[in-house]
Amino acid sequence: MSFAVMDGEGDDLTAKAIAATPFTAPQYTGKEYREGEYRLLAPMLPGKVVAIGRNYADHVAEVFKQSAEQLPPTLFIKPPTAVVGPGAPIRIPDFATRVEFEGELALIIGKPCKNVKADNWRDVVLGYTVVNDVSSRDLQFSDGQWARAKGIDTFCPLGPWIQTDLDAIETDDLPIKARLTHGGVTEVKQDSNSNQMIMDLGEIIEFITASMTLLPGDVICTGSPAGTAPMEPGDYIEIEVPGVGVLGNPVERA
Amino acid sequence: MSFAVMDGEGDDLTAKAIAATPFTAPQYTGKEYREGEYRLLAPMLPGKVVAIGRNYADHVAEVFKQSAEQLPPTLFIKPPTAVVGPGAPIRIPDFATRVEFEGELALIIGKPCKNVKADNWRDVVLGYTVVNDVSSRDLQFSDGQWARAKGIDTFCPLGPWIQTDLDAIETDDLPIKARLTHGGVTEVKQDSNSNQMIMDLGEIIEFITASMTLLPGDVICTGSPAGTAPMEPGDYIEIEVPGVGVLGNPVERA
Repeated sequence: MSFAVMDGEGDDLTAKAIAATPFTAPQYTGKEYREGEYRLLAPMLPGKVVAIGRNYADHVAEVFKQSAEQLPPTLFIKPPTAVVGPGAPIRIPDFATRVEFEGELALIIGKPCKNVKADNWRDVVLGYTVVNDVSSRDLQFSDGQWARAKGIDTFCPLGPWIQTDLDAIETDDLPIKARLTHGGVTEVKQDSNSNQMIMDLGEIIEFITASMTLLPGDVICTGSPAGTAPMEPGDYIEIEVPGVGVLGNPVERA
Repeated sequence: MSFAVMDGEGDDLTAKAIAATPFTAPQYTGKEYREGEYRLLAPMLPGKVVAIGRNYADHVAEVFKQSAEQLPPTLFIKPPTAVVGPGAPIRIPDFATRVEFEGELALIIGKPCKNVKADNWRDVVLGYTVVNDVSSRDLQFSDGQWARAKGIDTFCPLGPWIQTDLDAIETDDLPIKARLTHGGVTEVKQDSNSNQMIMDLGEIIEFITASMTLLPGDVICTGSPAGTAPMEPGDYIEIEVPGVGVLGNPVERA
């Protein structure tokens, strides 16, 4: 198991192993792997996963039946033990009876930081990835607090990799899609854009770091747009953020 | 900086440095330190801090003005970056206008575990310590989610050490006290007992591990009894769990 630089595109995509971590300039070991010769794991084992909830007005309306003015963005934490990589099954326990996907852009923090001003958010970010903030709606509402509903093992698929070129995407105008395959039929369920965010990436980093020190490897989930829907064992859920990647996971009974 | 076994009592208390971690039998390095020669840090840097809220009926009544039947115990997460050790200042930022202490018994997990039955909770616990679940009541209610209000840097004092003799205390009948010194006057603010817990230690471990894998070093906060009250810069707050230890921290403006 090692970190690797993903080089090339399509059939030419090659995993080039590096000696250390993504936080320093890559030192290539010389080992290279083509498709079929490697398996992607979660691109980071974070110290903490800090998430912004209620950051898209249309999602606030669908889940909470209230306006974003009534329910502004809030902050919650998913445990590191919930993180799995691309392709790993999302495993639903018996007591979670309505489990939904939430497709989101995620940030991987690159430097220890506190009290970061919004304009400087890019200085502390290593790169972008995709997260599925899997949420048991029944537990979310019965508990009041969201930590259990969103913190069950496997409820934080992350990947497929880290886009470290911060200029590769237009973060203020970024499509976010979720495709659910159920009974052999694939439907686009989420089809939104980061331009619908209430707090943008800079505001999110400023908001979080006013309270909490962020450390390298910490993951920031930037919120889900509308279109979240239940998943069942046998389904397959794919979150796509163009320019970042596609994160796909099967759904199983735990 | 190293882990150490605390040996002896009172004036004879000696910190005996060990080579590895508390998760294996101690290998003494031969270095020993007496009072004044060492400084205690938080006894663990946890992967996650999982906390039970609303686990004492009298505290539910004082904070939420509802009964424990209406508001049963719930689960939330404090970030590892909030942890500080004994004696370290609790630093209150400007935007947290009503910051209260919450004295609690904490468990340190000793083994990776999932789906632990209540009767077997002692099998997965390394030992006991004391936690102050510092909480900004204003943010707790305005955010709805508690992660920020309870997750600010320094808002998780932990220590002074880990009591690894699981038989040293009677966990079902354990006094829990908080003493606040304000303006030079010390008052006992919390004076309760673990026999008032709604979920006992076994039920807590079973409840959490039904959802989340716990890993060595993870911290479980078992809930606060009534008597929580605001702290101000200049105050000193001391939480005592007899047979475990006394955790004292000064309060400062951030």
